[in-house]
Amino acid sequence: MGEHFSDRLTRAIQERGTPAIVGLDPVLESLPAALQPRDRRLASAVAAVETFCRGVIDVVAPLVPAVKINAGFFEAFYGEGLSAYYRVVAYAHARGLLVIGDIKRGDIGSTAKLYARGHLDQPALDDVDPASIPDAVTLAGYLGENAVRPFIDIARKLGKGLYVLVRPSDPGADEVHEFAGRVGTAHQPDGGQCPPYAFYRHMGDLVRHWGAGPDLIGECGLSCVGAVVAPKDGASTAALRAMMPRTPFLVPGYGAQGARAESCRPCFRADGTGAVVNASRSVIYAFNDAQRVERHGADWQACVAAACREFAGDVAGLMRPA
Amino acid sequence: MGEHFSDRLTRAIQERGTPAIVGLDPVLESLPAALQPRDRRLASAVAAVETFCRGVIDVVAPLVPAVKINAGFFEAFYGEGLSAYYRVVAYAHARGLLVIGDIKRGDIGSTAKLYARGHLDQPALDDVDPASIPDAVTLAGYLGENAVRPFIDIARKLGKGLYVLVRPSDPGADEVHEFAGRVGTAHQPDGGQCPPYAFYRHMGDLVRHWGAGPDLIGECGLSCVGAVVAPKDGASTAALRAMMPRTPFLVPGYGAQGARAESCRPCFRADGTGAVVNASRSVIYAFNDAQRVERHGADWQACVAAACREFAGDVAGLMRPA
Repeated sequence: MGEHFSDRLTRAIQERGTPAIVGLDPVLESLPAALQPRDRRLASAVAAVETFCRGVIDVVAPLVPAVKINAGFFEAFYGEGLSAYYRVVAYAHARGLLVIGDIKRGDIGSTAKLYARGHLDQPALDDVDPASIPDAVTLAGYLGENAVRPFIDIARKLGKGLYVLVRPSDPGADEVHEFAGRVGTAHQPDGGQCPPYAFYRHMGDLVRHWGAGPDLIGECGLSCVGAVVAPKDGASTAALRAMMPRTPFLVPGYGAQGARAESCRPCFRADGTGAVVNASRSVIYAFNDAQRVERHGADWQACVAAACREFAGDVAGLMRPA
Repeated sequence: MGEHFSDRLTRAIQERGTPAIVGLDPVLESLPAALQPRDRRLASAVAAVETFCRGVIDVVAPLVPAVKINAGFFEAFYGEGLSAYYRVVAYAHARGLLVIGDIKRGDIGSTAKLYARGHLDQPALDDVDPASIPDAVTLAGYLGENAVRPFIDIARKLGKGLYVLVRPSDPGADEVHEFAGRVGTAHQPDGGQCPPYAFYRHMGDLVRHWGAGPDLIGECGLSCVGAVVAPKDGASTAALRAMMPRTPFLVPGYGAQGARAESCRPCFRADGTGAVVNASRSVIYAFNDAQRVERHGADWQACVAAACREFAGDVAGLMRPA
């Protein structure tokens, strides 16, 4: 059995001195000019994306505890792209980073088992590199516990983790997540008595329940079952945090999506633990920002490093009690 | 612009005389003994799965209008597995089948664009076979319209389709989908006045709305934006069908998951159109059923063909008005 995921992540956060993580969302058209492919073949496109990701990892590895690698951006290049995703995971591991696979999978139990096999489990085949499998994944829990359970079982066994969508960063998700309900489920002690509340709170309650088993909690007091919680208004975020005291949060929305460090504070526990904050576009495409190029020169990696340092420093203050 | 997806599917259903579609959920351990790999290498496992899928397609192609290929079962074998998924899609097309890619993706808008590029769009690279891309995909719409919009735009442009999860077949999904709410959204004329109702009805209403544009409706009167609707009790299924008169339904749950033909009838429109019924395990693993082997012999493809014929005939009656 591996060391608990939340204990590993907590230590990495302390070592780097920041809860910042960098999201790898590689879009071919946005890569540095020097990396653009010379032709329109699939292999050339995949090589360009992979080279870019390795270059980003090289500069962010000393600065942050983890990277989040978004499978969707690799699947734009079919199976060959997904193969590159696994190679990038292995490369990040080799550079000392923890890796969260941003896959957002969610399907019925019989299918979830197979997704878990490919995306989180120890490989059962002789020639698959265990280092190419992430330490944690993001999931959609909208198909209920059966969709998540195979991942939880692997997380417990191997010291891995998962983050289930509770409150996505896209404002367009509100038409689903602000759906207001009157609920009575087995997990809610006040059942039908509680006032109408939003769907995202229902999801938060389920995720808390799924991760509550004592064998799922690490020495740091956090579960291996986490939640994706975007910082919206402070009061509702604080209410979610209070509802889910042992649930680690993965906080999207920083930077290009508009959130600043202070708006992320309610996602943290009072002692400054319990969350990581992700930035993707504002860091990895820093070289497309004319002001930054003026300050740091045309070397794309220097721009990424500078943006990452600023981001890591900006959110480091969240580790101190408010 | 390609012919509308629902018109293509309607014609294929009429030609085959059945709304039955076969789901390819290949699990290595369940394959026929003769196809089991000789070693524990990734390439051997992928080859076994691919050979099996081609063999199933060979026997079901004359019997059904479409196959649903579940990406999760291929991703159990990483990027190499996903490459096989695309090859199986192309093989099914070559055998005259329509193909639904069962991917259940759902992410925020910026990521959804990339998923749509890899899973539904015309390839932008010179050496990617357009026949390897499905005619339609399943999606999760829980992140709202932005998660689905890139797929709708492609569907309109290329004559493709999508099916958004509204009521999953797994009973474990009920803890989310039976969440009862009091709603007021822009798309619901009765807004906050309507009585508390379940989350799945909210999703149904959104999906109906997303697919309602006149440029999304085919000559057959059905949208290219469909819904995955499992047959639960007849009354609630009929209510969903009435709410979504122009939405094509993909009906899971037949066979191994317990549903019979008659329980699927409320998913169809009164004239016997508007739905396809999927069976996966009960058809593709028919050779693991001792009674069937006794009747049809040990040839695994003969068993699959017999099970597919029975299934196709069983649901053919749903095409006639009740």
